[in-house]
Amino acid sequence: MQNYNPVELILAKRNGQALSSDQISWFVRSFLAGSIPEYQMSALLMAIFFRGLEEGEISALTESYISSGKTISFADSVAVADKHSTGGVGDKISLMLAPIAASLGLAVPMVSGRGLGHTGGTLDKLESIPGFRTQYGINEFKALVEKHSCALVGQSEELVPADKRIYALRDVTATVESPGLITASIMSKKIAEGAKHLVIDLKVGSGAFMPDLAKARELAQLLIDTGNNFNQKVKVVFSNMNSPLGLAVGNGLEMIEAIEYLKGNPLRDTAILTSELTAQLLLSSGLASTEAAALDIIDKSVQSGRALDKLEEIITAQGGDPRVLEDYSLLGTTRHKIPILSDAAGYVKQIDSRAIGYALIRVKAGRMKVSDAIDFGAGALLIPKVGSRLEQGEPIGEVHCNDLEAGQETVKLIKAAYALSPEPVPKEDLILEIV
Amino acid sequence: MQNYNPVELILAKRNGQALSSDQISWFVRSFLAGSIPEYQMSALLMAIFFRGLEEGEISALTESYISSGKTISFADSVAVADKHSTGGVGDKISLMLAPIAASLGLAVPMVSGRGLGHTGGTLDKLESIPGFRTQYGINEFKALVEKHSCALVGQSEELVPADKRIYALRDVTATVESPGLITASIMSKKIAEGAKHLVIDLKVGSGAFMPDLAKARELAQLLIDTGNNFNQKVKVVFSNMNSPLGLAVGNGLEMIEAIEYLKGNPLRDTAILTSELTAQLLLSSGLASTEAAALDIIDKSVQSGRALDKLEEIITAQGGDPRVLEDYSLLGTTRHKIPILSDAAGYVKQIDSRAIGYALIRVKAGRMKVSDAIDFGAGALLIPKVGSRLEQGEPIGEVHCNDLEAGQETVKLIKAAYALSPEPVPKEDLILEIV
Repeated sequence: MQNYNPVELILAKRNGQALSSDQISWFVRSFLAGSIPEYQMSALLMAIFFRGLEEGEISALTESYISSGKTISFADSVAVADKHSTGGVGDKISLMLAPIAASLGLAVPMVSGRGLGHTGGTLDKLESIPGFRTQYGINEFKALVEKHSCALVGQSEELVPADKRIYALRDVTATVESPGLITASIMSKKIAEGAKHLVIDLKVGSGAFMPDLAKARELAQLLIDTGNNFNQKVKVVFSNMNSPLGLAVGNGLEMIEAIEYLKGNPLRDTAILTSELTAQLLLSSGLASTEAAALDIIDKSVQSGRALDKLEEIITAQGGDPRVLEDYSLLGTTRHKIPILSDAAGYVKQIDSRAIGYALIRVKAGRMKVSDAIDFGAGALLIPKVGSRLEQGEPIGEVHCNDLEAGQETVKLIKAAYALSPEPVPKEDLILEIV
Repeated sequence: MQNYNPVELILAKRNGQALSSDQISWFVRSFLAGSIPEYQMSALLMAIFFRGLEEGEISALTESYISSGKTISFADSVAVADKHSTGGVGDKISLMLAPIAASLGLAVPMVSGRGLGHTGGTLDKLESIPGFRTQYGINEFKALVEKHSCALVGQSEELVPADKRIYALRDVTATVESPGLITASIMSKKIAEGAKHLVIDLKVGSGAFMPDLAKARELAQLLIDTGNNFNQKVKVVFSNMNSPLGLAVGNGLEMIEAIEYLKGNPLRDTAILTSELTAQLLLSSGLASTEAAALDIIDKSVQSGRALDKLEEIITAQGGDPRVLEDYSLLGTTRHKIPILSDAAGYVKQIDSRAIGYALIRVKAGRMKVSDAIDFGAGALLIPKVGSRLEQGEPIGEVHCNDLEAGQETVKLIKAAYALSPEPVPKEDLILEIV
């Protein structure tokens, strides 16, 4: 492979030129090998933030991430599918979607992340189950999927290590929000894990990092094109993140909500989103030929208890205590439950979901740094959505916490996140667009 | 002092917000203390490259550079003056200007740099004089200036260390060409050394890093405003760098040209520029009340030999061998002198001075990295300017070198740097504008 001058490559990108596949591959490989220092990588990342990446560059970067580690491939006879969410508040969809999809014949090798900042992470929710193990080598991971049609794990050191190192650097250099870098980061993992059908839940709104639909559409196109370049079928569902999703925000509380869903008691908004995302995978893989048929078999999987059985199978296979399905106290309880009561009457005009996510870090339902500890029992139940009517003194919800003082502060911050209007406010659609 | 989150400051700049003086000062100080790593500094520098710095931010950055080290101040009765050049090819003006200005009553504490890439550096030219010492602590430096009205030295570790470290990082992260960062880097040194009157020779053209006058004007305004914020009077002379300056390019050769100038044999273009830049300092400090008067006393200083005496005094004071004034062989000689003959007849339409600077690195007249060694005798004499008439077989000049093969390659590259036209080409003004 040719050698380049790293300063010249940074300069070229800074000046708006596209880098060749060979140049991108060399830069990433040299960075991993230690011959390009972090300060040059971070300068390149910031230049990319401003200048963007073309489709060819994104595919080259994705390829360089994939080839930095091992990859998984499943037998051609298996329809391998996965879902990715760009992160929201109260987003526990994976906990329902994975067992439902696996119960319907899809193989789901789901590599998830941890909560950081205002957004939660599937791994933390799963770890509220005593004994549940999320770290596996890729051979064990593959074997779990082959045996149980599903495994819910964290990113292995063997899978796309380049993404792991570069993401850590982006996180501390304010270079996360770059569509090209986001695309390579998401897609490299989803391609390396062997998924052939991918549905992406692209959150838009106050609780998401994409504030508007126009930017979300640009990102969606990059995700789809990059997937296609690697023979992966990609659908993108734009979903509304102006209200927290479902009722619970917090790890054990969200796990309870997911189990209740699979017991046949879904909440309205989580049902819409879980069904739509799962349906897209069934359509993509040919397991359903119409959306109506897809929604029907999804509903039957839940109502028949097969999806719940699949969740139990997954929990047991990954070392978790399946008694949590019948005894929610095993998922963590808290000493205090503080009601959040509305100070005024009105219609909910706006919810600052991001602020709610950050407020709940105070009771350890989330974390600021990856190394911060989580209190699995802590969190909140939050009832109103944008457009809901609230009366003075009526519950917005409740905060569950072990630290009373932190909990009271959290209650105040959550209250402040709800802006009321005396005039009726229209309810918003949860699903904005599908591409 | 308040503590900040470095990621939030990078993010703010990335999003186009101005940072407060306190934030800039904290960032620089934390970087020097090691609590902000280089990868965060380089991300901030790249964000600054794209978003720029406002006047207040530039002054805060300049202040943070200055306060990172010691500063020099001279008695109020002394008019302390200095010149800065943004770097060109064959630019030996400091070697004449400093002794002339010192012989006329100005104090000149000149902190210079080394050659890098296509541009030369005053320190390397001075070090072609056997024994000439350029590294001094600031107390010694100040004492030299107080005694001899002038000292020509390198940047001490004690003076603006923040600039030294950040400049090194900019150099390897493609973040040099930022007007705000350039301004803070230049002005911090010139303010910390105690100069009250500064003239800046802002090079524009093929051999300069400023390709056009519009960008040069923006930079000039930043330099002037920043100087004024620190009670320094700043004049900016825009000079043409489409042709190499004078006759010689190369360290010992340029030293010879400077000595000949002070012996009363100046070349036309170096005389224009040296006189104009020196005149600006005499006017700024009130030592002359009109430009005509200034030019007259400058001429008298040269013609009377007082400027040459001052150069001799400086050389002796800084440990150099003053016999170089009479014996140029002490400045380094080379085994080979290869003529550069024109392959065709025509008028010089364009000279790629940058390419000439880079070509001469092959014979070690310049360097690519700060650690590369210099051959003081090596270089070239280059006769034609833009607009000159050349006949086939006539000399463009000659290359002086010790490595014959490298010299022959250099001759070819230099020839290629001259573009000829069959039609007459107008000669260009050397001084484009003064602000």
